[in-house]
Parts: sequence; C-alpha cells; structure tokens
Amino acid sequence: MSTNREIHLAARPQGWPSADNFRLVATEVPTPGPGQIVVRNRFMSVDPYMRGRMNDVKSYVPPFALDAPLDGGAVGEVVASAADGFAPGDTVLHGLGWREYALVDAKAARQVDPDLAPVSAYLGVLGMTGLTAYAGLLDVAAMKPGETVFVSGAAGAVGSMVGQIAKLRGAARVVGSAGSPAKVERLLGLGFDAAFDYHDGPVYDALKAVAPDGVDVYFDNVGGEHLEAAIGAMNLHGRAAICGMIAQYNATEPPAAPRNLALLIGKRLTLRGFLVGDHGHLRGQFVEEMAGWLRDGKIAYDETVVDGIENAPAAFLGMLRGENLGKMLVRL
Amino acid sequence: MSTNREIHLAARPQGWPSADNFRLVATEVPTPGPGQIVVRNRFMSVDPYMRGRMNDVKSYVPPFALDAPLDGGAVGEVVASAADGFAPGDTVLHGLGWREYALVDAKAARQVDPDLAPVSAYLGVLGMTGLTAYAGLLDVAAMKPGETVFVSGAAGAVGSMVGQIAKLRGAARVVGSAGSPAKVERLLGLGFDAAFDYHDGPVYDALKAVAPDGVDVYFDNVGGEHLEAAIGAMNLHGRAAICGMIAQYNATEPPAAPRNLALLIGKRLTLRGFLVGDHGHLRGQFVEEMAGWLRDGKIAYDETVVDGIENAPAAFLGMLRGENLGKMLVRL
Repeated sequence: MSTNREIHLAARPQGWPSADNFRLVATEVPTPGPGQIVVRNRFMSVDPYMRGRMNDVKSYVPPFALDAPLDGGAVGEVVASAADGFAPGDTVLHGLGWREYALVDAKAARQVDPDLAPVSAYLGVLGMTGLTAYAGLLDVAAMKPGETVFVSGAAGAVGSMVGQIAKLRGAARVVGSAGSPAKVERLLGLGFDAAFDYHDGPVYDALKAVAPDGVDVYFDNVGGEHLEAAIGAMNLHGRAAICGMIAQYNATEPPAAPRNLALLIGKRLTLRGFLVGDHGHLRGQFVEEMAGWLRDGKIAYDETVVDGIENAPAAFLGMLRGENLGKMLVRL
Repeated sequence: MSTNREIHLAARPQGWPSADNFRLVATEVPTPGPGQIVVRNRFMSVDPYMRGRMNDVKSYVPPFALDAPLDGGAVGEVVASAADGFAPGDTVLHGLGWREYALVDAKAARQVDPDLAPVSAYLGVLGMTGLTAYAGLLDVAAMKPGETVFVSGAAGAVGSMVGQIAKLRGAARVVGSAGSPAKVERLLGLGFDAAFDYHDGPVYDALKAVAPDGVDVYFDNVGGEHLEAAIGAMNLHGRAAICGMIAQYNATEPPAAPRNLALLIGKRLTLRGFLVGDHGHLRGQFVEEMAGWLRDGKIAYDETVVDGIENAPAAFLGMLRGENLGKMLVRL
C-alpha cells in the first residue's frame, strides 16, 4: 500500500498567501470504518472561496484548521469500501480534496458517471461551478430573455459559464471583463458579445462603451470598482447577483466600496449575495439542462490543469492571481 | 380674488441648501381650463427626496426647473372647477405643493374624505409616507413575524411608521436610531423595543447593544455608516429596504460607503432600493389596514407643522437637519 500525501495549512496568510502558508505532509493511506469509503482522488478543485476559510474568522463555513489538511471539492475512484452501495472502481464526487487518498463518509459522497463526461467536469461545468453560475444568473438575478448581462471575472470558471448560459437563455447582450487580452479574446470565442480588459482604464468607462444601453443583470465575481461601475451602469430594476469579491480577498486595508449606493433607490436596484449551497433544489433541472447543452455542443468550458498534489498550493495561488482560464484543477 | 404666492427655485444648492436657493413669488390666482381644477392648498409636504430634485442631474424624476415653482404633495380644497366630478369645497390630494393656489389637471387629483381623518393625514400616515413604510417593510424587505427590525432615522415620518407597522405585523423586536435624546424617548413611547442616539458613538456598537441577536430586516433612511453597521449586524438571509440616504443628500464629497459588502455573500443578504411609486398596487390593502389601526388607536403619528408659504423653505431646511418629529408639514 502506498503513502498518502496531503496539503496542510501551515500558517494563516496575512494578505496575499504564499507557499509558506502550506505544508506537504505524508501520511498512511486510511482504512475505511463502517459506512466509510476510501477514495483515490483524481482531480481536486481550487476555488476563490477557500481564501476566506484561511482566515480565522467566523463565516458561513468554519475556517480551515491549522496543521490539518485543507478540504474542498474532489473526484476520484473508490479503492476500499465499508459502505453499502459503493464498490472499488466507483467514481465519486466528495468534499475532501487537497489529499491523494480521502477517507469519506459514504453519505457525503455522490456517485458520478465517468462515461457521461470527463470526471473533472463534475467539479466544474456539471458541478458546483456550473450550478453557481446557473443559480446566480437565473434564480438570484432572475435574468429574463432580452436583457443585457455583465459578468466580471468572466474568463474564470464561474464567469465563463454565466456568459454562455445567459446567451443560451436568451440574453440580448452579454459582456464581460477579464484580466488579459488573451482572456478577452477567449470570451469573444465563447460567444460573449463584447469583453474588455479591466487593466485598460476605468471599469465604468469600459463598461459603458460595451453596454451603451446599460446593464440589467450584473454577476459579480470581483467586487470593488467593478461593483461600483455596474451600479452606475445598471438600468431601472437591475439586479446584481453577488457571487464573489476576489478583488478584496487578500486585502489588508478596508476595500474600496461603491460610493454610489444611493443609485439603488432611484433605479430600484437589488444587490443580492448568494451561496450555491442554498440552491440545491435547482440541481436536477441544472444537470438536465447543462447535460443537454454539452451534448449538443452548445457550451464550452476551459480547464487549467496543474499536476501533482505538491503543486496544489501553486495552483491555488495562480488562481487567485488570475492565471487560469476557466476552471483551475489539480490532477492527482 | 386674492393673490397666489409660491416658492420658486432661485438657484441650485451646492451641498447644504440655504434660504438663498428659494424665492417667494406673487402671481395671480389661476383660472381652470377644461378638465382642470383650482385648489386652495391647506397643507404641503416637504420631503427628503426633494433635495435630489434640486440638482440638475438625470434621476427617476426630472430635476426642478430654475425660476419656476417647486412641487410636491399637497392637500386642499377645490375653489374652482372645470372638470367633471369635482366641485368647489371638495378636498383633494395632488402633486402641486409649494404654492397657495394650484392649477391641477383633475386626472392628477384624488378626492379624500376630510371627515375620516385630518386632511394632513393624507400627506402622511394615510398617504405617500405611510405607504412608503408599509411597502418597504412588508413588500420590499418581506418582513416576517418573529423577526428583528432595525430602522434608521426612526423618528422621521417614514421611520416612525415602519417601527409601528413592524410591531403590529408581529416583529419580535424593533429597534431604531434617531438624532436626539428626545427623539429616542419618543420612539420608546411609540412602542419601539429600544432606540439609540446615533451621536453617542459608533452606530455598529449601539446597534449590537440593542439587537444582540442580530437584525433580520433593515429599513434604511440614512445610508453611510448606518448601512455599514446594519450589514455588519444582519443575520443570515437578512434584507435591507433602501428607502433613503439622507446622510449624503447634501454631501459635496463622495459619501462614506460600506466597506463590508463582502458580507452579502456569506450571509446571503439582499439590499434593495425602492420607490413608493412602484408599489401602488398595495394602496388599497394599505389604506384599509392603516385606517383600521388608526380607528383602533393602535398607531400614532407625529406632525411638525410650520405656518405660511413664506416659511416653506425653512421647513424644508429644518427637515433636512432633522428638526422634525414625524411628518414635516407646511400649513398654508
């Protein structure tokens, strides 16, 4: 039996994290107790929300513990099972990433079909990432056909889904911001009507140039200046689904805040924060619709894959810096 | 026939307005054309939203014109009519205040019953003020029985209604902020469970002291530090109805903005701006319920009354400075 390797949180980052905040630890491959399975992880997800869990503050999920493995979405094969309904060879999705072998309560694992889609898709387009985009756009922001949608961080895993789902669901115009010319180019390839590099000048000016008739729905992955610009550009009765504020996750100063919130009144705007976990009731509908789009070749998804558990911290840091196109994954 | 006197906007204020921005002008009492009535105004309303209309910026209502009468809610008696359904002696509610005699299109006037309530009530508790409180609390913020409600500017016309309606509709706890010890005392008299003077220290600290278990619904009349404090104190799935931001209507610098908007995500908060004009469908239900509460002595309303058209600017300025308790009115 081989060794298991996992990534521990060695120290809590102040501001931007670095490699020093992580530690690679070798342990023994676990043995399942009753109701448990052992999973050889094949892919693990690194996501923006994990940065918040590295702080020791009360939040919607408890902070990561020091000197213990991190966790997060992962998919892999069952190698040992002491649980009904799971057998070696099964492919499962679960929440104990950041390690090569995971000891998982069977109740917290979900069987997925590796013949229906590449297993990595269950972490992305068919998984939490896709559902986040779907629920935020259609449920939280209640996008209607004919509307104009603005997505920030649009070349990221969630953002690129939002834009494509918006088009498929009848948005009149979909525009996005991203952090490099290559990403902007990719957004146009994904069917965005227009996109801009937010480094090129004030976000508000760039947004008004690509959405001269205003924005009805804003899907916020960034916060800060992007949110202020969106509020400024929004039409009457506009809705913003606040999914993330990656611009400020590593801030050590109080972040920039929109100074134009009084516009919420006259324009009757709604800003609504959400977590995908509240929208599980949409999962069935989402999987059915998304699987259809994938089957018909109507939706594309990018993955940026880093190999090896030892490189998981680098993958996470790269994702925070925006080095990924689409979903950032670690192949184990 | 006597002279009409009206208040014109003489100059657009920069920051805080002053008496110089207004001009008292004598004109002739108008004669009604077909479909019109002439109303001798008895009460006119001065409201925070009017400050925004003094700026020459595009907004949800056009700006006031220079060298022309201001307008706003008023109630008075018909003295001449060339419109079906209106006769001299009728009491009507309409939108052409800031003048002693108004020439009103009959379609823009609504008959009210002076025997049912004092006519001033149609500008306040039974009028736009009351409906603003009712719609914001129950429709926009969707308050449910058992929740905790925080109202800023709670001794104002709208705020004092919000708190009382919340209690009548089953809120578990209602707390408010106001700008003087006398106002705080009055809020307790109106049935608020607790209240604080926002001059006494950081709003967040005061709010946590009176709402230690957090806030489910925030009714915002103030903006700025109050909004940041409310976001900080809100419970999961909290909702804020953004009605006004009087703290910044006279600001010449970009206003303070909440630096904690990332909390919207983890706490799944909703901030929603609204205008009462979008909620006219609730008027029937509102009038019925409010009239019942008034009849049963379950709701109280304060009025601060200033006499004379020549003092209307002073009444407006005093309202902006918070010198009113409840609804600020000018008796003509």
